[in-house]
Amino acid sequence: MLTTQDPLLLRSQDARGAVTLTLNRPQAFNSLSEAMLTALLDELNALAKDESVRVVVLAAAGKAFCAGHDLKEMRAEPSLDYYQKLFAQCAKVMMAVQRLPVPVVAKVHGIATAAGCQLVAMCDLAVAASTARFAVSGVNLGLFCATPAVALSRNLGRKAAFEMLVTGEFISAEEARVKGLVNRVAVPEELDAEVERLVASIVAKPRVAVSLGKALFYRQLESGIEAAYVDAGQTMACNMMDDSALEGVQAFIDKRPPRW
Amino acid sequence: MLTTQDPLLLRSQDARGAVTLTLNRPQAFNSLSEAMLTALLDELNALAKDESVRVVVLAAAGKAFCAGHDLKEMRAEPSLDYYQKLFAQCAKVMMAVQRLPVPVVAKVHGIATAAGCQLVAMCDLAVAASTARFAVSGVNLGLFCATPAVALSRNLGRKAAFEMLVTGEFISAEEARVKGLVNRVAVPEELDAEVERLVASIVAKPRVAVSLGKALFYRQLESGIEAAYVDAGQTMACNMMDDSALEGVQAFIDKRPPRW
Amino acid sequence: MLTTQDPLLLRSQDARGAVTLTLNRPQAFNSLSEAMLTALLDELNALAKDESVRVVVLAAAGKAFCAGHDLKEMRAEPSLDYYQKLFAQCAKVMMAVQRLPVPVVAKVHGIATAAGCQLVAMCDLAVAASTARFAVSGVNLGLFCATPAVALSRNLGRKAAFEMLVTGEFISAEEARVKGLVNRVAVPEELDAEVERLVASIVAKPRVAVSLGKALFYRQLESGIEAAYVDAGQTMACNMMDDSALEGVQAFIDKRPPRW
Repeated sequence: MLTTQDPLLLRSQDARGAVTLTLNRPQAFNSLSEAMLTALLDELNALAKDESVRVVVLAAAGKAFCAGHDLKEMRAEPSLDYYQKLFAQCAKVMMAVQRLPVPVVAKVHGIATAAGCQLVAMCDLAVAASTARFAVSGVNLGLFCATPAVALSRNLGRKAAFEMLVTGEFISAEEARVKGLVNRVAVPEELDAEVERLVASIVAKPRVAVSLGKALFYRQLESGIEAAYVDAGQTMACNMMDDSALEGVQAFIDKRPPRW
Repeated sequence: MLTTQDPLLLRSQDARGAVTLTLNRPQAFNSLSEAMLTALLDELNALAKDESVRVVVLAAAGKAFCAGHDLKEMRAEPSLDYYQKLFAQCAKVMMAVQRLPVPVVAKVHGIATAAGCQLVAMCDLAVAASTARFAVSGVNLGLFCATPAVALSRNLGRKAAFEMLVTGEFISAEEARVKGLVNRVAVPEELDAEVERLVASIVAKPRVAVSLGKALFYRQLESGIEAAYVDAGQTMACNMMDDSALEGVQAFIDKRPPRW
Repeated sequence: MLTTQDPLLLRSQDARGAVTLTLNRPQAFNSLSEAMLTALLDELNALAKDESVRVVVLAAAGKAFCAGHDLKEMRAEPSLDYYQKLFAQCAKVMMAVQRLPVPVVAKVHGIATAAGCQLVAMCDLAVAASTARFAVSGVNLGLFCATPAVALSRNLGRKAAFEMLVTGEFISAEEARVKGLVNRVAVPEELDAEVERLVASIVAKPRVAVSLGKALFYRQLESGIEAAYVDAGQTMACNMMDDSALEGVQAFIDKRPPRW
């Protein structure tokens, strides 16, 4: 476990419940050391239980967004057992992003490589600066980005994902948008504002609808279409019985803003 | 049950077997009241048994294509049981579109929102006027579009689908085409002609090939690739033994048009 | 079984282990006769066991890339049993492409139709000349391209795939790229060079990483995300324990090129 004076992960929260988590290991390109993975998992677990939280922005300090695993640490004492535990721990963090009951927006201002690119793929939404770049570059070192492939191939088409994985080449932010890895691209000066547009949109909705909806979204993707409809129908019926939906629909009928 | 003088659903059929179903509740933006859902399901069930039908165009009267559920009706007597039945009934209609043995082409001239957007996503093909717009806007009222998410996430990439669902924002027809929700976009004056191009192409093919093919298409999407190939191989062998395929292939060899 | 003086399939291999397989039945638009399917399967099975092979380019001689099944042969003695065996054999060839432990790059210089288009879809990567065109045109003859649908619908969005299958219409190389069927498009004079860029990138990586990675890529696509992460984590741990990855990561830390 590293000890540092500055925390590896910064957290801030505004009055609306918009939390910003900032990867804060700029000198190491915010690489996902064991300590960083632990910090992320602890924070995500805490956020999952905090009903005041409405949306999480995942940002990063310094020049890079995230350069993936900490290779020095990873190379220090090689053993199959160690690597199995490391990649299992990393997958746990990635799944905690998807399982969080509120949306997670990646704010990608610099390069996102390997597990850093995977982190972007696992977020529900992603906004990139036009200067950001993305790669799953492990294969350049002889290590195929297998766990990033899980996330990447669920965002991009098959051939585009395989090309990135086997060539290890960078794609631009604009290419990432066209291929489906990020939602929006902004010039660097507009990155904050573009992220804020998504945040403002999300916090304007009732938390329960967003939370039920996010969980259902990922659940039904793994079912056949009939089972998906059964699940979605139940979810939507429960959502509709919630006071916020009853009020929202009534307000729409009455042509007035909802009183939430 | 509503009673109206005008039928909720208009049906016309031409000599080729091209049926047009027109949602005809323009004053309510063709919203899917219980009566409309019943009318649609009855009509789709009847069409499924009618061998003279070769293709269905799903159109709508008035300014909007379809604004989703009828919110006034839905809000009148809230109960979990009622909502479960309502969303199950709606899913039944949606699956009837996919199960129809002939292709269904959505002809989207105006806004398609919530379950209206879902209807477009469930059609096999969709052509939109350049002025049409699409949203899954339930979340704006506190009701996450869970059942529409099932259809939308099977048309669009994951991040694009989630963005629409969580923001509730409209996308343009051109964005819908790029993201995969519609096949073609035409200026409003050309919408009929663009739909007719698809219709003419479909009615020029033997019904049996199209029908076997459509069913196989959706079936194999839900299997692993090996099981999908077994199913597809059997389907194609059966199709090839049909007189129309034997004649079509022979005509190709003989460099003459098929005598169907 | 056809007998021909020229081999149906040409094979060449360079010093790097880059193999080019060339469909060599130009007078028949390289259609997949039974003899061609047998030749392909035999060659793919041999390549799968040859550790000197690092990447395969699938090319074709003459004007067309591949026009699908040999319709004359297929029409000669129709029987359900014969067609079942034929399509099963064809699927075996297609799966052998996906199962090959090295990447397969389609080099598409001319039209690729029906099972020829399927072959492109089954390759891991594809580069097309800007003049190439793609169609799943069986439906024009009354034979829905059911087995090609398996491959096509795993490359393209649902509506785009269904449109190609039901209309039988050609799309351009550029449309194929946008829809996800091919990775890159080059003017005809640059086709060789563009394929070479991918080949050079692949042979620069350790074979074991690429091979483990390719197998994992297709395996995990058929699992739920949790099972996919377990599989990917194990694969990546095994890959990391390989000498080439240990050396690659160490070289990166030492800021020197790896000694592979």
